[in-house]
Amino acid sequence: MNYDLELYDTTLRDGSQGEGINFSVQDKLRLAERLDAFGIHYIEGGWPGSNPRDMEFFELAKRRKWKHARLAAFGSTRRKGVAVEDDDQVALLLAAETPVVTIFGKTWLLHVKEVLRATPEENLRMIGDTVRYLKSKGKCVVYDAEHSIDGFKDSPDYALATWEAAAEAGADNITLCDTNGGSLPGEVAEVAARLRARVKTAIGIHTHNDCGLGVANALAGVQAGAVLVQGTMNGYGERTGNCNLVTTIPNLALKLNKRCLSPAALAKLRDISLFVDETANLRPDPRQPWVGETAFAHKGGMHVNAVQKLARTFEHADPALVGNHRRVLVSDMSGRSNIVMKAQELGFNISNDTPELKTILSEIKRLEHLGYEFEAAEGSLIVLMRRCLARVEPKFQVDAYHVSMRRAVDNSICEATVKVMVDGKQAHTVAEGDGPVNALDSALRSALSQFFPKLAKVRLVDYKVRILDGAEGTAARTRVLIVTGDGKREWGTVGVSANIIEASLQALTDSMEYCLMERK
Amino acid sequence: MNYDLELYDTTLRDGSQGEGINFSVQDKLRLAERLDAFGIHYIEGGWPGSNPRDMEFFELAKRRKWKHARLAAFGSTRRKGVAVEDDDQVALLLAAETPVVTIFGKTWLLHVKEVLRATPEENLRMIGDTVRYLKSKGKCVVYDAEHSIDGFKDSPDYALATWEAAAEAGADNITLCDTNGGSLPGEVAEVAARLRARVKTAIGIHTHNDCGLGVANALAGVQAGAVLVQGTMNGYGERTGNCNLVTTIPNLALKLNKRCLSPAALAKLRDISLFVDETANLRPDPRQPWVGETAFAHKGGMHVNAVQKLARTFEHADPALVGNHRRVLVSDMSGRSNIVMKAQELGFNISNDTPELKTILSEIKRLEHLGYEFEAAEGSLIVLMRRCLARVEPKFQVDAYHVSMRRAVDNSICEATVKVMVDGKQAHTVAEGDGPVNALDSALRSALSQFFPKLAKVRLVDYKVRILDGAEGTAARTRVLIVTGDGKREWGTVGVSANIIEASLQALTDSMEYCLMERK
Repeated sequence: MNYDLELYDTTLRDGSQGEGINFSVQDKLRLAERLDAFGIHYIEGGWPGSNPRDMEFFELAKRRKWKHARLAAFGSTRRKGVAVEDDDQVALLLAAETPVVTIFGKTWLLHVKEVLRATPEENLRMIGDTVRYLKSKGKCVVYDAEHSIDGFKDSPDYALATWEAAAEAGADNITLCDTNGGSLPGEVAEVAARLRARVKTAIGIHTHNDCGLGVANALAGVQAGAVLVQGTMNGYGERTGNCNLVTTIPNLALKLNKRCLSPAALAKLRDISLFVDETANLRPDPRQPWVGETAFAHKGGMHVNAVQKLARTFEHADPALVGNHRRVLVSDMSGRSNIVMKAQELGFNISNDTPELKTILSEIKRLEHLGYEFEAAEGSLIVLMRRCLARVEPKFQVDAYHVSMRRAVDNSICEATVKVMVDGKQAHTVAEGDGPVNALDSALRSALSQFFPKLAKVRLVDYKVRILDGAEGTAARTRVLIVTGDGKREWGTVGVSANIIEASLQALTDSMEYCLMERK
Repeated sequence: MNYDLELYDTTLRDGSQGEGINFSVQDKLRLAERLDAFGIHYIEGGWPGSNPRDMEFFELAKRRKWKHARLAAFGSTRRKGVAVEDDDQVALLLAAETPVVTIFGKTWLLHVKEVLRATPEENLRMIGDTVRYLKSKGKCVVYDAEHSIDGFKDSPDYALATWEAAAEAGADNITLCDTNGGSLPGEVAEVAARLRARVKTAIGIHTHNDCGLGVANALAGVQAGAVLVQGTMNGYGERTGNCNLVTTIPNLALKLNKRCLSPAALAKLRDISLFVDETANLRPDPRQPWVGETAFAHKGGMHVNAVQKLARTFEHADPALVGNHRRVLVSDMSGRSNIVMKAQELGFNISNDTPELKTILSEIKRLEHLGYEFEAAEGSLIVLMRRCLARVEPKFQVDAYHVSMRRAVDNSICEATVKVMVDGKQAHTVAEGDGPVNALDSALRSALSQFFPKLAKVRLVDYKVRILDGAEGTAARTRVLIVTGDGKREWGTVGVSANIIEASLQALTDSMEYCLMERK
């Protein structure tokens, strides 16, 4: 595929400046792999000179094979009055061993004078020296021109001089950055046009959402000739966030008809958006353009009616193009067909006339009202459907359990006991663990393995907790989502209770019941 | 005050089409009063012909005195083939007794043919007849041209003919509506310019956020000459929502220098945004432009350093203009200046040269590496700072605790015991709870209240759990964030452990230590 423009993701670096966002090195690796598979062209991994944890990421990233993306290390121009080869921060950029290095430099005289406290000439040398040095080391160099729009408005000649310094030193791309996020699309377009008229270097655009214009400003940059778009997944980033790539990508591909991602990848946009939120443990924004849960939801009766006649009367695009789907928020008829579709998808023999359908539907509605969520818990959904449709008794029953944790000065012990019943036979087991849920998990597994040896192979892959009504404090209802795997496949189950132990037990028992059901 | 343009709020009508938004009549009245006091020029109260409940609102609204705003009833052009004076829906618009009536009509031939199933000529008559009739009844008439941009792109001549029909019939304003939200700012600007060239009537702009361009499209309309901006508070509305007035108003006032609201009212923007979320029972978006909790929050050490020197280096506007404030976040990305600013903000006597600064910084980095997060846990941060700076011993010590939960067939009991030491005296207490953490919280509070009676008044406001390395399953490290309040103020604290009980206890003890420290 030939591209009209390339996508540059900085979720791992600029995105992690967002409040409440805290990626571990493992999170970063998983995100980078997913972005790579998705088709992002550049992945900015971090700033090795500012954050020691970022170096760990680059060390691990070196050993991976990247299918599609080129990794970028981010940093700044050399310090004032220091030879570029003696600058530690620049040395760390090389140590990251990425094919691409992105450095930012100052455009705005205010910053040169008040923040850097350097002369305008020294700033030009800092830009030129650093770009030239990185080029001499064989790097692809993206020059991020900080405060491009503010700087240009303040003193256009100096701004252009800084960009010429980067261009003359061999930068592969000069990216205009609206660092403070206060610019309007018209201003961005004007500055981009002025830069294009001055240098031959390819240009890029990096915007922020402080005025709710992050996406609009990126599009304005592209319409004025930018061929590299920087942003973050779901718009993470400092203050109100960066340009949201999840919104920008379909706008570029479907509204401006720019080739930047294959249609097959675009159809995974909703998936990757959810994955990133999940990794950051943030609740997905239901109103997020293109991919949000309500992005193609119709509530007004008139709209629903018209959409049924002809979708494009009230839909600006086909939701399937970005992996989303239409939702109608009116009758339980729509709920009914959803359930039928889901059940058929899961292999149940069911139609619109199956009498148990109503029972399943009302049971799901009741549980969802209590806080259960089946989207990420198909295991629990299947257990529930099967119970209603096939009237299968559970394979086992947990009659009682006890969890205890004691801590004294120098020691701590956490213990769980479980009493289960299988075909009239009882097992009573005890186990220790790192915490109460871990102990309970072990005790339950040990009890059930006596009857179902295959359960010994099963293990927990993920465990997530969300408090549903924060204002209730420690008495709030808790939703536990767990993912279980047997080495071949994984399944999710859910439990809800005011008591985290009880919610965890529900999810654990569903998980095991699902596992036993499948093997039949 | 003379206005360059006027603000038209449709939170009560179009906003209530949003998923999960359900205003009672009393809610609507309270919102309308608040919007009126704030300085909105037009408040659209509902569609009497579509929603019977809306008539109740208009009945009550008639008896109120509106200081600033003019109320609008919303509806559609007359039905096809019916005389306008015989149309029930139009009669209800008059029965609402509002000074303003807004009606929408069809611009797009596709809709005329496929949805209305009327001839193009009949649609023109429906527009003209309805506007003329409402004008003859003394109403100020806003004509909402549905699907303006899509319709114009499809057949410009017909679109212009529909607008001329409204203009000739005497409409006071013709508002271009990007009903499906799929248009780009350049398209909106072009259509607005074409309309202005054709009619003398004042024009307005009504946009949706399906492409994340709701605000940008409204600004494009204004820059092309629109003098009425329609939108909703916090961007509520069908699908991804309407143009967000909370973002658009400061952009108009502070970026385009349009007179549309007094500076004193603008300074209440954050208040009204929170009030509307509160009324809708929605969690405010912390990343909302201008008014969000993080809109002026700085995390990166370099940014904080520069903001300290000169705010506008990294702030596009003064947060006070919209009633917001600057915040400095403490995280492992933060340097020395974050800590100093934070400590000063918190009342500690500290400067860049204080020797303990390095200890605090490395302690924060160490803890954050373990998974602690201080952004939302200022209480723990203060406890830590005070320990390092003032070398104060904790007021109490938890020597031991025991948590136990037992469930049998029909009963469940959760119990915690705690042993605390205060000034050489011991207290040993026991309490029950809904879950293990709730029980522990009660036991600890009961033990400490014996020594510090003020703790009896303190209560948990929020409790959040996050699993740090999901892949470890139930043995993963857990981060607990709690918010505690004493009725006057609230503070956050944090704890991290592989054991959720232990993590919760850390956050609880920090919370109480912070409370006792403050009262000294």
